[in-house]
Amino acid sequence: MAKKILIIGGVAGGATAATRLRRLNEDDEIILFDKGEYISFANCGLPYYIGGTIKERDSLMVQTVEGMEKQYGLDVRNFSDVTKIDPEKNTVTVHNTQSGETYDESFDELIISTGAKPIVPKIKGLADAKNTFTLRNIPDMDQIKKYIADHNVQTATIIGGGFIGLEMMENFKQLGLNVQLVEMSSQVMPNLDFEMAQQLHSQINLHNVNLYLNDGLAEFQNDGKKLILQSGKELETDMTILSIGITPANDLAKDAKIELGFKNAIKVNKQLQTNYPNIYAIGDVIQVNNLVDGSETNIPLAWPANRQGRLVADIINGIPAEYPGTQGTSVAKVFELTAASTGDNEKTLQRQNIPYHVIHIHPNSSAGYYPGASPINLKLLYNDDKQILGAQAVGTKGVEKRIDVISTAMRFGAKVDELSSIELSYAPPYSSAKDPVNMLGYVADNEINHRTKTIEWDQVDRLVDEKATIIDVRNDFELTTGKIPSSKLIPLNQLRDRLNELPKDKTIYVYCQVGLRGYNASRVLANDGFDVVNIDGGFKTYKIAKY
Amino acid sequence: MAKKILIIGGVAGGATAATRLRRLNEDDEIILFDKGEYISFANCGLPYYIGGTIKERDSLMVQTVEGMEKQYGLDVRNFSDVTKIDPEKNTVTVHNTQSGETYDESFDELIISTGAKPIVPKIKGLADAKNTFTLRNIPDMDQIKKYIADHNVQTATIIGGGFIGLEMMENFKQLGLNVQLVEMSSQVMPNLDFEMAQQLHSQINLHNVNLYLNDGLAEFQNDGKKLILQSGKELETDMTILSIGITPANDLAKDAKIELGFKNAIKVNKQLQTNYPNIYAIGDVIQVNNLVDGSETNIPLAWPANRQGRLVADIINGIPAEYPGTQGTSVAKVFELTAASTGDNEKTLQRQNIPYHVIHIHPNSSAGYYPGASPINLKLLYNDDKQILGAQAVGTKGVEKRIDVISTAMRFGAKVDELSSIELSYAPPYSSAKDPVNMLGYVADNEINHRTKTIEWDQVDRLVDEKATIIDVRNDFELTTGKIPSSKLIPLNQLRDRLNELPKDKTIYVYCQVGLRGYNASRVLANDGFDVVNIDGGFKTYKIAKY
Ligand SMILES: Cc1cc2nc3c(=O)[nH]c(=O)nc-3n(C[C@H](O)[C@H](O)[C@H](O)COP(=O)(O)OP(=O)(O)OC[C@H]3O[C@@H](n4cnc5c(N)ncnc54)[C@H](O)[C@@H]3O)c2cc1C
Ligand SMILES: Cc1cc2nc3c(=O)[nH]c(=O)nc-3n(C[C@H](O)[C@H](O)[C@H](O)COP(=O)(O)OP(=O)(O)OC[C@H]3O[C@@H](n4cnc5c(N)ncnc54)[C@H](O)[C@@H]3O)c2cc1C
Ligand SMILES: CC(C)(COP(=O)(O)OP(=O)(O)OC[C@H]1O[C@@H](n2cnc3c(N)ncnc32)[C@H](O)[C@@H]1OP(=O)(O)O)[C@@H](O)C(=O)NCCC(=O)NCCS
Ligand SMILES: CC(C)(COP(=O)(O)OP(=O)(O)OC[C@H]1O[C@@H](n2cnc3c(N)ncnc32)[C@H](O)[C@@H]1OP(=O)(O)O)[C@@H](O)C(=O)NCCC(=O)NCCS
Repeated sequence: MAKKILIIGGVAGGATAATRLRRLNEDDEIILFDKGEYISFANCGLPYYIGGTIKERDSLMVQTVEGMEKQYGLDVRNFSDVTKIDPEKNTVTVHNTQSGETYDESFDELIISTGAKPIVPKIKGLADAKNTFTLRNIPDMDQIKKYIADHNVQTATIIGGGFIGLEMMENFKQLGLNVQLVEMSSQVMPNLDFEMAQQLHSQINLHNVNLYLNDGLAEFQNDGKKLILQSGKELETDMTILSIGITPANDLAKDAKIELGFKNAIKVNKQLQTNYPNIYAIGDVIQVNNLVDGSETNIPLAWPANRQGRLVADIINGIPAEYPGTQGTSVAKVFELTAASTGDNEKTLQRQNIPYHVIHIHPNSSAGYYPGASPINLKLLYNDDKQILGAQAVGTKGVEKRIDVISTAMRFGAKVDELSSIELSYAPPYSSAKDPVNMLGYVADNEINHRTKTIEWDQVDRLVDEKATIIDVRNDFELTTGKIPSSKLIPLNQLRDRLNELPKDKTIYVYCQVGLRGYNASRVLANDGFDVVNIDGGFKTYKIAKY
Repeated sequence: MAKKILIIGGVAGGATAATRLRRLNEDDEIILFDKGEYISFANCGLPYYIGGTIKERDSLMVQTVEGMEKQYGLDVRNFSDVTKIDPEKNTVTVHNTQSGETYDESFDELIISTGAKPIVPKIKGLADAKNTFTLRNIPDMDQIKKYIADHNVQTATIIGGGFIGLEMMENFKQLGLNVQLVEMSSQVMPNLDFEMAQQLHSQINLHNVNLYLNDGLAEFQNDGKKLILQSGKELETDMTILSIGITPANDLAKDAKIELGFKNAIKVNKQLQTNYPNIYAIGDVIQVNNLVDGSETNIPLAWPANRQGRLVADIINGIPAEYPGTQGTSVAKVFELTAASTGDNEKTLQRQNIPYHVIHIHPNSSAGYYPGASPINLKLLYNDDKQILGAQAVGTKGVEKRIDVISTAMRFGAKVDELSSIELSYAPPYSSAKDPVNMLGYVADNEINHRTKTIEWDQVDRLVDEKATIIDVRNDFELTTGKIPSSKLIPLNQLRDRLNELPKDKTIYVYCQVGLRGYNASRVLANDGFDVVNIDGGFKTYKIAKY
């Protein structure tokens, strides 16, 4: 028997569900509602159209209302705000914002894919700040673009250094604007840990963006032309983008007594069902299981929305399927840098009191002797059970490839030392015979089997204070980039001949530029009976973190 | 008790084993022999130094004899040709090619990492062809480079279209030479299937290389200045590179009655032991287990050599470890194109009578609306147990990333439909919300669950001959690039309204440009009771294959 299926929200999750539903069943009545004019658009492209990298506005419309109707035989209703769900009567109330008409529509099955909405804090002066915008959809984008065209904008301010804030920063720079970025926490890109984000801060400053960390917006003055920060700093601005975060677009669900969970996202089971079995929810609006640690979370990204859209259609059609949870794999371009991550970071793990080990390495993206190779700042987290907990990478080339490989390994339950067994493609323009991912596996293997002990960059200053024995095993010409205070230079090549200079009764801390020679030195010393600890990631990690 | 360990061959496998052996044990006596002057060099960079992409000859020396001695406390003996292994006495005989001295050296453990040697067929006239070279090491490279510098070379000929042949082709072009490439089989790059290699053929021709397929070298004339092909064709040439393949450097092993296997590669167990438990062999010289189908094979690549070098050192030191086999993941640059693969191809599977299914897709490397996106020609092979058998990819961007992800999934036993569950990083400059790898998983899922039937490009001409009903669901403007003969145009957008034009008693074959709309059309038709088959990979796969 044909089913009647309603979908609220016609973009990443909703549109994907709709097309799959049609492919599975030609007879079902499928109605897709969106309150906006546009469905099926490329949210993720919006910043790049503003900056002019994407030239054709039309290219953002992955599908149109007409295309979806003709190609998939769907009933697509834009300008249709769903104002109420009645889970008892199995109806929704729809308000057509063009015609003004309001009507009820019944359903057998309902999919909620309403996404998220930008958080707009109640800040003094906001109501008068007509030069202040958020970015979520095509009309938002059009408004921002028009404001810049019409108002001789010279200086733009971005509040919030997450993905969207950073993308807007880059695109405003692309337009030749003066850009200032205000971020409340100590770092941009919260999916990274601090020392990894520091590389982004350095790049952001390099591009002459004025970066205000550890500071928040307190007040708009002068119709939004002046911003007062919490520190008291005053910034002049021609326009402001508020990108401090998003919150699930859960109003409909809340009113309908659909159960909410983490940060008021809709609770669903693995079949993406809410507490009403014929009402499903997907995308930014739902709570998901963190695949790494099992905690409840909300991960508003396009991959999960698309994936859940496909799965919910299958589930509604009786095909066995489930959504186990989200790893949070993501990537962003920050000027010439790429920053990517998957799984948990240290902050998340600490918050949950989950014990972990850390590795930092700085391998080349491809063979060092082949032109264009460039270092990747790569971090891995794992636990005593050898479970991979997360990875982060920053660099200019091959960055997302390594995160994708690690994400894949995690998805299929690889143990951390098994990273060394992954046969990755190698030719000089692409990688090294031991790929950076393999290298992580080797380093982990050495740690797990107690062939090396390491200490992290954030302990180094303490060591210096405590007057620990710190040996720099680099060559002397390398010291031009700096050194750890009070460290003593014994190049690795001379180490075997100078063991008598080292105390047997104290722990010796060794380091090199990236950790590799430090590790080799630590093996020489350990084999000789010294108690030795290698500074993980070498001077480079320390220096980047101290930026 | 300290061990005495000898290693024959000081490059990828041997040098890696040596450094790891030292890190594991400071007391062992470790002697590394190489008959050449150079150890630890970047074999894979040789072609690029000839072509001038790599400018510094020294950068090819990853380690030097002195560096290895100082940094790792190894006894490195270059110019030291090992001429005999005595497995009973546990000695090797060494001939120092500089001093002329010959001596025996005893061992507790021996590692053979002698690599491979280029196959040089007995071709008439070869002895007089002083302009003919093979490329395996630094002296080979120097000779080629010097010959070009000294002899006003205008035209170079390459015999054999494998990795090294193709790299030499590109690098000779880089030098501005006229290049001709002669390949005995119907295609270059044997790890790819024919229709994938066709894209390379097209690229090679675009760069004005004269490509002679299905033809072999029969004779050198005029001191190597004239080449006679098996077809009778005559080619003028100033120099020739013989790159028709390699064979394991097994002489020592054979003389010592060490057991040989596949193509006379040394037989080893998972602990890399030969039939003499204290004699190990690694790298190009050994037989390995094909990880996909379990067959015996020989896969001469740098990743396995490096991996086995690490493992053999562990094994000798009593650390539990094994080498399960090789997948054969590889990549090569062919002008602007990248070609990569992992696992078995159709040719390998057919040879072994292993049944398989095929998928061809042509997704963009990144979001289509973001500038620089470029299509990837992606092929996947899998079987009825959902095992992934192999993958191949050709394109300009993100090619090796997808093969690396699939290789990782294979390594950890992912089922083919699980490819859709891998959470890959997405932002417009890098990928799509459904990554190409996810898409392969979705397509496989549809095939496995009989939601679509497909037919391959190589059956299309037969369909045309048999006057089958072939429906082209593209839009008419797309026909400018060509069409399948006798197909009838019904754009997907019109299909639902024109079902009456189609016969219910015959199989209907549908196609579009890449397979996606063909699949959607096949769902419309199947849901309506038609017997329908989609042409896998669409017109694009057919057209590339027919190049
Ligand atoms: C500027 C920007 C850049 C981004 N970049 C990336 C990126 O690079 N990578 C990445 O992974 N993710 C990115 N995202 C996030 C990604 O777009 C979302 O995760 C994804 O679109 C979520 O899909 P969804 O279906 O849940 O919601 P959406 O795609 O947002 O769709 C929700 C739709 O529901 C409609 N709707 C809401 N309420 C109602 C109602 N009551 N009645 C009718 N319709 C309603 C809305 O109008 C909206 O069109 C970006 C987002 C933005 C805004
Ligand atoms: C031009 C070229 C390009 C390549 N490109 C790639 C690529 O892009 N990707 C990839 O994965 N692989 C590539 N390879 C293959 C890769 O280099 C090999 O797979 C790898 O080097 C094999 O390591 P091995 O230790 O077995 O042998 P090798 O690295 O070849 O080392 C063997 C050594 O043993 C020495 N030896 C042999 N017999 C004796 C003896 N009797 N006494 C003393 N010494 C002896 C030799 O002199 C030689 O130095 C390339 C190879 C070449 C030649
Ligand atoms: C485009 C959109 C309408 C969904 O359409 P869709 O048909 O599911 O998605 P795609 O065009 O990506 O195609 C995927 C389908 O084609 C199939 N397919 C893809 N390539 C194929 C090929 N070469 N041969 C056969 N089938 C193919 C897949 O199997 C899948 O079908 P299935 O779900 O039935 O298995 C929806 O994703 C959307 O609105 N996207 C824009 C919004 C968005 O995602 N925003 C966030 C990112 S910017
Ligand atoms: C370079 C060469 C001598 C081997 O040296 P190696 O020390 O094994 O290799 P690398 O320099 O790659 O370093 C790997 C080691 O450093 C460790 N390491 C790497 N980065 C590290 C870091 N940042 N911190 C701590 N340890 C690190 C790894 O764990 C590994 O040690 P392990 O094997 O004891 O676990 C050998 O690979 C060689 O000769 N290569 C050139 C020839 C060749 O490979 N040709 C084919 C490709 S062109």
